[in-house]
Amino acid sequence: MKAKVLITLKDGVLDPQGKAIKRALAALGFDGVDQVRQGKYIELEIAESDAARARKTVDAMCAKLLANTVIENYSIELDG
Amino acid sequence: MKAKVLITLKDGVLDPQGKAIKRALAALGFDGVDQVRQGKYIELEIAESDAARARKTVDAMCAKLLANTVIENYSIELDG
Repeated sequence: MKAKVLITLKDGVLDPQGKAIKRALAALGFDGVDQVRQGKYIELEIAESDAARARKTVDAMCAKLLANTVIENYSIELDG
Repeated sequence: MKAKVLITLKDGVLDPQGKAIKRALAALGFDGVDQVRQGKYIELEIAESDAARARKTVDAMCAKLLANTVIENYSIELDG
């Protein structure tokens, strides 16, 4: 089963990478960009066919390794 | 309008970061992880209410700055 994990910074956490992208877009002539936030995207292929168990496993992976839950939120999407 | 951009490595492009995550998951006792690929996620707030124009603008941003189209694919999702 394929699991897609989106990791984003929590609101209020500074995002210098996003700020840099915003400045670079403005320098390239893209006006009207109000906010840019950069996050991470992780695709996992796991050997688990049961959706509930797969979600539980990926949730544990996020909490233990993939995300820093002090400053980051994560969402999990299962596919097939 | 909010635009969500997912940037992933093309198939066949080596992903050392994904490999490192896979090894780290195995070291933590998560078995049965077949493949891990890491990508980027970018959220943009743009001052454009027309969906077609917004998509065109974000597509140009991806081609010019956000993604390296030689080795990366990107997908755009518009929201609100």
